Amino acid sequence: MISKLIDRIVETDAPIVVGLDPKLGFIPDRILKECFEEKGMNPEGAAEAFFRFNKEIIDNIYDIVPAVKPQIAMYEELGIPGLVAFKKTIDYSREKGLFVIADIKRGDIGSTSASYAEGHLGEVKIGDEVFKGFDEDFATVNPYLGSDGIKPFIDVCNRQDKGIFVLVKTSNPSSGEFQDRLIDGKPLYELVAEKVNEWGETSMDGSYSNVGAVVGATYPEMGAALRKLMPKTYILVPGYGAQGGKGKDLKGFFNSDGLGAIVNSSRGIIAAWKSDAYKEFSDGKVGEAARAAALDMKKDLAQCH
Amino acid sequence: MISKLIDRIVETDAPIVVGLDPKLGFIPDRILKECFEEKGMNPEGAAEAFFRFNKEIIDNIYDIVPAVKPQIAMYEELGIPGLVAFKKTIDYSREKGLFVIADIKRGDIGSTSASYAEGHLGEVKIGDEVFKGFDEDFATVNPYLGSDGIKPFIDVCNRQDKGIFVLVKTSNPSSGEFQDRLIDGKPLYELVAEKVNEWGETSMDGSYSNVGAVVGATYPEMGAALRKLMPKTYILVPGYGAQGGKGKDLKGFFNSDGLGAIVNSSRGIIAAWKSDAYKEFSDGKVGEAARAAALDMKKDLAQCH
Repeated sequence: MISKLIDRIVETDAPIVVGLDPKLGFIPDRILKECFEEKGMNPEGAAEAFFRFNKEIIDNIYDIVPAVKPQIAMYEELGIPGLVAFKKTIDYSREKGLFVIADIKRGDIGSTSASYAEGHLGEVKIGDEVFKGFDEDFATVNPYLGSDGIKPFIDVCNRQDKGIFVLVKTSNPSSGEFQDRLIDGKPLYELVAEKVNEWGETSMDGSYSNVGAVVGATYPEMGAALRKLMPKTYILVPGYGAQGGKGKDLKGFFNSDGLGAIVNSSRGIIAAWKSDAYKEFSDGKVGEAARAAALDMKKDLAQCH
Repeated sequence: MISKLIDRIVETDAPIVVGLDPKLGFIPDRILKECFEEKGMNPEGAAEAFFRFNKEIIDNIYDIVPAVKPQIAMYEELGIPGLVAFKKTIDYSREKGLFVIADIKRGDIGSTSASYAEGHLGEVKIGDEVFKGFDEDFATVNPYLGSDGIKPFIDVCNRQDKGIFVLVKTSNPSSGEFQDRLIDGKPLYELVAEKVNEWGETSMDGSYSNVGAVVGATYPEMGAALRKLMPKTYILVPGYGAQGGKGKDLKGFFNSDGLGAIVNSSRGIIAAWKSDAYKEFSDGKVGEAARAAALDMKKDLAQCH
């Protein structure tokens, strides 16, 4: 799967993933009004607004970026209707040719991770037929439980041609609390990175592995060190823009082949219409603003890969 | 919230939570047949079978145990219909007076954790009304991202009178890969335990905190050490029975007040009807077998609290 994503990154010349993390506050009144009138001022209406908001963004970016990353928490917050909108977002994104990196940060003991892996990346057999739960291309995974929580995901990646990104060093301020603590002189995130290498060897797909890593844009020096430590690992880089990371700081996340990293921006693109930098779209032109912001991000990143 | 759960543990004299982790292989043919005929041989049918299977168990244990722990992965595997069954299971359990510990192992950066916390334990405001996503009593949480991933859950616990259990030392074979590694002479799980104490102080509810910990029954010595390290922390203990833990080994998980731990059994109770030990129920008497197994577990645990 990673080789397909890389092909599309090269085609679009955009190592960019757009985080589809809707919030009611990001959605223009015209969409909210329409959805609340149709479905009620309730989770069904809000979830439908999430989907239509996403659709306007997808329709305006699918030809210039390779991938989207819906954060399932935003949808889960609305309960079942939210998860229906999450699924619709995945399906519509894939229909438009976008790769879907589902930001689900799942991880559990082996047999339970297997259920997550099948539900998100694989399939279940009922009678003689197989069914797909969420049908994503990639999912993010939490490593705290160790190898037996990760391997079921890799089995599904190998069987279904899918990929994962394992949390190594997250973008948030308190990520260092455990991740940076030294073990035999090395931070925990480096030990996780070594494991990512090891796991990655079991799912190579061209020059890179289907087992990627998450490393926050907010820690560029650690990103550069981790880049060298995991040469065949694709790095998913959250924390660009709103969380503080900037293009020029991200050079270290890329390999000398210009590949190796895909940078996520959520708010900076999906809520661009509300920001001062894109005032011309401030009357609710969500999609046009997202396109302009994605193109600006592409320019900003051009200096680092 | 923890004080309410404790009251019910004392009333039932059963520090037991029943893991509602259905699999198609655990469900008798009569339920499967009925559900596949009604809903089709598809995820809708399978999910309905999960719910009816759970219902037979709930109906037979609600008066003798305080709580159930549905593992969301089993439901997520079936996609949206599975999550509908998860929600129905929560609602029905609470209707019968059971506390619901949702095993969701969520955790993310601050603003994203806030969405998980509201969706599972809190509420969302849409217009002038508030709605609840999943409405659980407790949820399990992954600590890898540090304090800012945990605090939004605690805020919701304080506002809504709910609780969480933070993964400290998990029950699986590879849990030691990262969790046991020494940092300044202490294993990582002890550092997490120290943080659990610190977080717990901000949500005390009687003698114990609404911030609990997960420590696997499969590591009884570590359990005993962690018990002493976290005196005001309730410990959720998975891994009893099928995963290997036995009652006599679990004494160390309890405080001298006889409280402090609640032990989970999933397969050992919900699939008891299929085991040699409960042959008299082998013709698909799911609920009766679950009750017998829960009563046996209560006896087995009586020696340790």
